[in-house]
Amino acid sequence: MALLAGIEGGGTKFVTAVARLQAGCEPELVASEFVTPTTSNPAAVVNEMVGYLTEMSHEHGALDALGIATFGPLDLDESSATYGCLTTTPKPDWQGFDLLGSIRRGLEADGRTLPTGLDTDVNGAALGEWRWGAGRGHNPLVYITVGTGIGGGAIVNGAPVHGAMHPEMGHLCVPRHPDDEFEGACPTHGDCLEGLAAAPAIEQRWGLPPEEIPDDHPAWEFEAHYLAEELCVITFVLSPQVVVLGGGVMQREGLLEKARERLAEMLNGYVPAPELVPPRFGMRAGLIGALALAESAAG
Amino acid sequence: MALLAGIEGGGTKFVTAVARLQAGCEPELVASEFVTPTTSNPAAVVNEMVGYLTEMSHEHGALDALGIATFGPLDLDESSATYGCLTTTPKPDWQGFDLLGSIRRGLEADGRTLPTGLDTDVNGAALGEWRWGAGRGHNPLVYITVGTGIGGGAIVNGAPVHGAMHPEMGHLCVPRHPDDEFEGACPTHGDCLEGLAAAPAIEQRWGLPPEEIPDDHPAWEFEAHYLAEELCVITFVLSPQVVVLGGGVMQREGLLEKARERLAEMLNGYVPAPELVPPRFGMRAGLIGALALAESAAG
Repeated sequence: MALLAGIEGGGTKFVTAVARLQAGCEPELVASEFVTPTTSNPAAVVNEMVGYLTEMSHEHGALDALGIATFGPLDLDESSATYGCLTTTPKPDWQGFDLLGSIRRGLEADGRTLPTGLDTDVNGAALGEWRWGAGRGHNPLVYITVGTGIGGGAIVNGAPVHGAMHPEMGHLCVPRHPDDEFEGACPTHGDCLEGLAAAPAIEQRWGLPPEEIPDDHPAWEFEAHYLAEELCVITFVLSPQVVVLGGGVMQREGLLEKARERLAEMLNGYVPAPELVPPRFGMRAGLIGALALAESAAG
Repeated sequence: MALLAGIEGGGTKFVTAVARLQAGCEPELVASEFVTPTTSNPAAVVNEMVGYLTEMSHEHGALDALGIATFGPLDLDESSATYGCLTTTPKPDWQGFDLLGSIRRGLEADGRTLPTGLDTDVNGAALGEWRWGAGRGHNPLVYITVGTGIGGGAIVNGAPVHGAMHPEMGHLCVPRHPDDEFEGACPTHGDCLEGLAAAPAIEQRWGLPPEEIPDDHPAWEFEAHYLAEELCVITFVLSPQVVVLGGGVMQREGLLEKARERLAEMLNGYVPAPELVPPRFGMRAGLIGALALAESAAG
């Protein structure tokens, strides 16, 4: 029975957990998750997580592997000198920070080498849902999160997709809703999908945070439109069997169904629509994903 | 040394060939390619190809495997009752035609079972370029053809991408060039990429077939714009290391370079651009792809 550590790095907090994994089962946490706010001091955040994991391994035994699923963009090219570093992230204090290296240096102080898996938060979440969750074994499986940002990851032919970098599905430009005059809220791309459909865009367009907008407000038609445009693109490029839609905004009752209807209208029978499902692991998809990355690294 | 048969199914012709394959080498054709026009009588087209392959196997020995890389859309789900049939293709006489089954029935009349690989023309071409060509071993590798239609295939984590169906990258909707007033020429989607940038769209917009349009005509700025929009989408979804750009329209001198410049402007350093390269196998990418499918099927 393997003892795995998972770290989910998010825009507002890092969540760390240790879990036991029995063959054929989901991971079981050995203790409550450990939460560290994503402050402007990345070294201090890493110190806290390393301290927690060191304590856990004193209590529960040596860790077999560590998985990290984090916000990005980050360098995932193992042959690169900056492998495991954050790159052009909008958080200035984290730009260029060697996230993987600094955690490994902390955990490997005893001279042991820890097998480590690293990926984006959304590729991690995709892997967790593919391994144990809502899209078990489906090929391709895409995971999209719609919250303060929009991101997407994909499992194709059994492994996460990385290439020149990793997918950045939230920054696609899609055709605008014909009645939408909002200029877009993405600091980098203006009216990319994230700039039109993430929570801050919804709030700026309608003057209300998404959780305060009633179910029958036109905001949700706009949102379903943009999600369907994004899903349309993903369907034409990857033809996924399943798309798992997570994140805070997707918790709105009825939104998934509205997106499904709009997508069917847009595809109009030319190609089959992927199955759209909520994540099995809900808001924990990223952490479970980090544990799935640890499992893959343990081999 | 394996004896492989490959069939490339295109909108105007089917090309059939038999090749010997030595480990570590490219396939070598044993005779000239056999060309059959894509008439409105699919059964007769198949009969001709089966006749040719039967003759070849009398001369050169029993075939070890067959690969088919064909226009679509087609059913690639091996568990489906209509596996190997064309589905919603715009060619009415070919809709629903059991391409794989009818060829197999012809070739397996002697009771032998022939290992068979089937994929879209563009997934086949992608596989050929990944296996022996311009993007050898790159992950992901995307192949795009720009000719009378636009299509794209992808090799991700070592195998072609299929899911609910297969990619249909030519039918993406991308933002229009700000000065483009052409209504679009795709019979199904109007102003999707194929409707704006394939050869018939170029001809309708400018009143000249692409091969008669001079190098310094604004047509090529429009074309580069649309190719870059498509490549931008593919980069955000798949982050390919290499995109191979083939097809008749791409043979225009300087177009690949123009598309590369426009893509770099659009991505603006946010994510790395894939390497854009011409196909090693040129107009034979589909046939070589069919042979690569045969090789995979031979195991």
